[in-house]
Amino acid sequence: MLIDVPQNKAYALLTGGPTVFITSRSPEGRDNVMANAWNTLFNMDPTQVIVVFDLGHDSTKNIIASGEFGISVPGNALKKGLIGAGTMHARDITEDKFAYAHLEKLPARQINASLVGGALAHLECRIMDPELFARTGIALAEVVAAQVEEDYWDGASLICDNRPEQTLHSAGAYTYFPRGHVQPWSPR
Amino acid sequence: MLIDVPQNKAYALLTGGPTVFITSRSPEGRDNVMANAWNTLFNMDPTQVIVVFDLGHDSTKNIIASGEFGISVPGNALKKGLIGAGTMHARDITEDKFAYAHLEKLPARQINASLVGGALAHLECRIMDPELFARTGIALAEVVAAQVEEDYWDGASLICDNRPEQTLHSAGAYTYFPRGHVQPWSPR
Repeated sequence: MLIDVPQNKAYALLTGGPTVFITSRSPEGRDNVMANAWNTLFNMDPTQVIVVFDLGHDSTKNIIASGEFGISVPGNALKKGLIGAGTMHARDITEDKFAYAHLEKLPARQINASLVGGALAHLECRIMDPELFARTGIALAEVVAAQVEEDYWDGASLICDNRPEQTLHSAGAYTYFPRGHVQPWSPR
Repeated sequence: MLIDVPQNKAYALLTGGPTVFITSRSPEGRDNVMANAWNTLFNMDPTQVIVVFDLGHDSTKNIIASGEFGISVPGNALKKGLIGAGTMHARDITEDKFAYAHLEKLPARQINASLVGGALAHLECRIMDPELFARTGIALAEVVAAQVEEDYWDGASLICDNRPEQTLHSAGAYTYFPRGHVQPWSPR
């Protein structure tokens, strides 16, 4: 079950550089979804994130127009969908890209876009610096809503130990590694 | 043994969001070293990176002045040093911060700073957008030299499987996870 994560804790859904879905909606109402491995944090309270986009991508155009995008953090069960979303441009297919990648839509609550159903966590984001984004593709964005699967959240960290799914982290051009054993930096 | 990594492959040293050392040198020649978990990529060929800095930190002032910084990617053997470098400001100690954190200096080749000896990989970086950095703390930087421990590099990915050390990835405010099993996205 998805539970809400407060804005001063949501940063922990994106630490460690997971590969994620980025969702957006065009001015004409067409949903889009892409894969992204280039993301990090900018602030913790409230959570603000950085996601790097290619200026030529369809999603970038949607987000320049709307100022909003979703981040859905998948585990293994969505790996094929992540590859599907990451290897085809929306402009090169006629069908809905969620359908193309066999992904379910989950309605967002604060932004005008769909999220990816079945992901372990979701962050709804609003662009803070439109000029920077349009010039460089660097999306500096505030998280306006966040949710996490209750079973994968200990209140401060996203935990995959002994759970069926692991988050996925890019290791190179064609490789990834699963989230390892989450542990304290300094044992108490 | 450290080997050179070309600029169009160096991005794979920073994928998956490792927690890293950031090194810099003040105009007076004082070395500094800090811990950073907020980094990602901006471009692959040549490798360009994004590192998020706090505008109030000593390292940020050094880098505004020099335009240069180093990234050293540690494994477990440097975990205590990472905690030491990450929990004390250079301005609050009189001794050299490398010495304070029990870290060895490795001379950089292209930038005016020390790197952290014993780390698994090193990236030497030059700021590309000084105005953006001074205004926001977002360091958009080009990698001008990169090295990796030969035993942890397969030519395209940083691999820790069955090696003594694992890279360290922030999971929340006080937790991390080690790099898991590196594997292809799509088995061939």
